[in-house]
Amino acid sequence: MNRHQSSLVNGSFEQGISVYDRGFTYGDGVFRTMRMREGQPVSWPFHYQKLVADCAAIGIVCPSAELLMSDLQTLFPITEFAEGASYVAKIIITRGESERGYAPPSVTVPTRVIVKSVMPQYPAVHYDQGVQLHVCETRLASHGRLAGIKHLNRLENVLARMEWRDEKIFDGLLLDQQQHVIECTMSNIFARFGNELITPDLTQCGVAGITRQRILNLSKTLSLNTRVAKISLEELLQADEVIVCNSLFGVFQVCAICDKFWSQSQLAGIIRNIFAHD
Amino acid sequence: MNRHQSSLVNGSFEQGISVYDRGFTYGDGVFRTMRMREGQPVSWPFHYQKLVADCAAIGIVCPSAELLMSDLQTLFPITEFAEGASYVAKIIITRGESERGYAPPSVTVPTRVIVKSVMPQYPAVHYDQGVQLHVCETRLASHGRLAGIKHLNRLENVLARMEWRDEKIFDGLLLDQQQHVIECTMSNIFARFGNELITPDLTQCGVAGITRQRILNLSKTLSLNTRVAKISLEELLQADEVIVCNSLFGVFQVCAICDKFWSQSQLAGIIRNIFAHD
Repeated sequence: MNRHQSSLVNGSFEQGISVYDRGFTYGDGVFRTMRMREGQPVSWPFHYQKLVADCAAIGIVCPSAELLMSDLQTLFPITEFAEGASYVAKIIITRGESERGYAPPSVTVPTRVIVKSVMPQYPAVHYDQGVQLHVCETRLASHGRLAGIKHLNRLENVLARMEWRDEKIFDGLLLDQQQHVIECTMSNIFARFGNELITPDLTQCGVAGITRQRILNLSKTLSLNTRVAKISLEELLQADEVIVCNSLFGVFQVCAICDKFWSQSQLAGIIRNIFAHD
Repeated sequence: MNRHQSSLVNGSFEQGISVYDRGFTYGDGVFRTMRMREGQPVSWPFHYQKLVADCAAIGIVCPSAELLMSDLQTLFPITEFAEGASYVAKIIITRGESERGYAPPSVTVPTRVIVKSVMPQYPAVHYDQGVQLHVCETRLASHGRLAGIKHLNRLENVLARMEWRDEKIFDGLLLDQQQHVIECTMSNIFARFGNELITPDLTQCGVAGITRQRILNLSKTLSLNTRVAKISLEELLQADEVIVCNSLFGVFQVCAICDKFWSQSQLAGIIRNIFAHD
């Protein structure tokens, strides 16, 4: 992929970000990562709704869906999509530029950035047998007001991800400072206990992804009682099944955390099949 | 000031930051703000030592002092300094560029950015009578590992600073979630109780500024017992004097927080005089 044709800043092929952009100076912005198929963002209504909500949560007026869709069509021309080909689109919205100082100017023009990258190729074993998680020593801080938002302040995720280099590890499990399970560095997590499918409460920290929300909405389809709850690592390790999810890979079963192993089961495949109709 | 001559990125007059720079995508970097006088950064040894320590805390190898000093001399030619003139230099060091994903590449080249701005002109009343603080509703999260570091994840400061527009307010007081006083959005804080000069403990959150450290080191000069302690807002409001400090303005007395007022006293002026010899 030609890097110079791989990003748009405010609708123009990349000229770079200003050193005055508050996304750079303070992480003052939000982002989303999504799959592009046949020139279209998969699950766009969910992504755009979340982007608007995350912008609003920190006082940024999100660019219109029309403008972002126009950017996406410029960066991902339909002619580039061979049959079945996928790309990844990352959309970053910042508060825009300002002089030095935390106070935003009374009028700011948000910066919109779209970055194109190749779709990761996940090994067949991830689909067949599941993925292995590392338990991170890095603990998530309880932000309250910033909880759930996919903002640009991601140093915790970076430090957590730096804890392992073993390529057998797919993702790292993040706990909060009270030792509750919250999420993984790049995915949300669910644990099935019998008829209950539980995902951690994210009211104090973590990123509330759209795939997580969509799985929560699947109660009837799955004949499972899906719900949000506080859950400890010890409880998680007692689950009948554990799955992780995000907008790129969809859903994978977890086959190992620490010394706990789970044999192959059905849930991840069932949810993947439901989402395959997106 | 000509904006195009007002910043250097890796030693070159600004071409902008890459959209792949991890400072932009994750806030994966650190920064410092300092005063430039007669072409030289004031208190440079303290600033550089802190920059190296903050880089090390998140696993970045800080560029050499020689390289940064060379950048500063390029951006702040001595000929531009009229007698007594000051500028502000902001140095940002990021982990460098990478493709999408929290894992840093095995080899990264840190990005160094220097931004020049005019020195703020503080009103005479700030020196004569002191400054007024707002008590922020935004609470600082307890990060532990990130505490004390002046990193680029500054959304809390931005949200806190957005709480007031009243120009009579100089800065906002930040508490943690246990209601301890920690700092202000752009300054550290000290409270004098008789012979004791106390500054909040920053082992869980906050930025440990160099001016704070230099005041802590002034015990003998000031004939005060300077020390770090946990302190509540109620305790702070009982102090005989309160001062705030940073690398630009040095030290100001606090004259008002909420309904509490302090009459003019000596400490801020004494410390300003000590630092005037820098």
